[in-house]
Amino acid sequence: MKDQNLYNYVLQHADSSLILGQRLAEWCGHGPILEQDIAMSNISLDLIGQCRMWYQYAAEIQDEGKSEDEIVAFRDAWDYRNVQLVEQPNGDFAQTIFRQFLFDTYSVHFYEMLINSKDERLAAIAGKSHKEALYHVKWSGDWVIRLGDGTEESHDRMKAAIDELWSYSGELTKPNETETKAFEEGYGVNLAALKEKRDAKIREILTEATLEVPESTYTHEGGKDGRHTEHLGYILSDLQFLQRAYPGQEW
Amino acid sequence: MKDQNLYNYVLQHADSSLILGQRLAEWCGHGPILEQDIAMSNISLDLIGQCRMWYQYAAEIQDEGKSEDEIVAFRDAWDYRNVQLVEQPNGDFAQTIFRQFLFDTYSVHFYEMLINSKDERLAAIAGKSHKEALYHVKWSGDWVIRLGDGTEESHDRMKAAIDELWSYSGELTKPNETETKAFEEGYGVNLAALKEKRDAKIREILTEATLEVPESTYTHEGGKDGRHTEHLGYILSDLQFLQRAYPGQEW
Repeated sequence: MKDQNLYNYVLQHADSSLILGQRLAEWCGHGPILEQDIAMSNISLDLIGQCRMWYQYAAEIQDEGKSEDEIVAFRDAWDYRNVQLVEQPNGDFAQTIFRQFLFDTYSVHFYEMLINSKDERLAAIAGKSHKEALYHVKWSGDWVIRLGDGTEESHDRMKAAIDELWSYSGELTKPNETETKAFEEGYGVNLAALKEKRDAKIREILTEATLEVPESTYTHEGGKDGRHTEHLGYILSDLQFLQRAYPGQEW
Repeated sequence: MKDQNLYNYVLQHADSSLILGQRLAEWCGHGPILEQDIAMSNISLDLIGQCRMWYQYAAEIQDEGKSEDEIVAFRDAWDYRNVQLVEQPNGDFAQTIFRQFLFDTYSVHFYEMLINSKDERLAAIAGKSHKEALYHVKWSGDWVIRLGDGTEESHDRMKAAIDELWSYSGELTKPNETETKAFEEGYGVNLAALKEKRDAKIREILTEATLEVPESTYTHEGGKDGRHTEHLGYILSDLQFLQRAYPGQEW
């Protein structure tokens, strides 16, 4: 292991992208309309593409000869470092949209700021991913507005989605030890500054959507350090089945 | 392998009990009322207990030194021989009840007749399991009546459950080659005779429940020969995760 903190930092972002990508992929073939089914599948593929860049870098830092596939397929839940938000169930379309919106408002600013990382690999991943994140947050933000400021039913469903997911929002911008150290060492993002930008964006969109911003600042946390909700195990049992059953298989 | 046909016969009954037991166990902690949550968990345990007797016998017939756990954990979907009915999703309580009722009306007569098998092990498994199946069919039959002849909503839900599952009913009593041979050789059950008894029981209960017996005789089939619906793979990825991830672990 070349740098344990850098490895953890890279891994937690890899895992969040992977798990959200996997969750979104569950919609494939089940979307409410064809165009949005395809949109979700495309965003899922973007996230999987992003996580591959992260995992490839993680594998190099780890320096144990493991491939990106091995890092994904042979860790159990407690070694996954994704935020708890992304492992939450799809629920209805509104819930999926709001989960995505909470992630995208983080992601777009995270990559925007990470471009200035003193670590060149991180800066490169950020440059490529930021363009995609801009599109993602446009998509999910538009849907929050469309559903929130839509029919009575769509408004109520967005409200229910906010109630369900709000308490998973804060983990993204609450630094754990890894992130604090990463920022101090100049390769990680300043989450306090990111939080300000993100909170403003969330407020702007929710207001336009005629939805209230919840006052609660309570947040579930621990995902970034390997503590997860019951959902992650089920995701991994699906995600890892092929490699667990047929180790070493390749495309 | 001592007797391929006997092995297949044993395995298909083992697999049906296992998969239905696993499906019912998904209700644990989610039942509509505590007493019925416990009832479903108990029936699930009965089914798991029954499948263990079947798998232990299968392991002896196979004679390759494999344990019952290995037979369960390291086969993929196409090697599973359960009927497609038991892998169908729980749906709502009515759907779970009707799936159970379709299985129990088969099971109770199957074990009743299997007691006369010329194979002593099968007769012994049947003797033990028949007592449990009598209880199961009483339970699920009572619920079919209670929901069918209940409120408008419970009646409608039972009707929806019948629509959803009826086409998976026939596979249980339509003999495949294995069952035909097993009957000819004197250790298997006569499914034509069983079908008459079961059809009468289904008709009796549905009539009391003020529900119509569907006229369609179309049935999905192939589960007993390894052809499954998409659901089985997901069940196995949950069911097998532990042994796939940590091979050889024991209690």
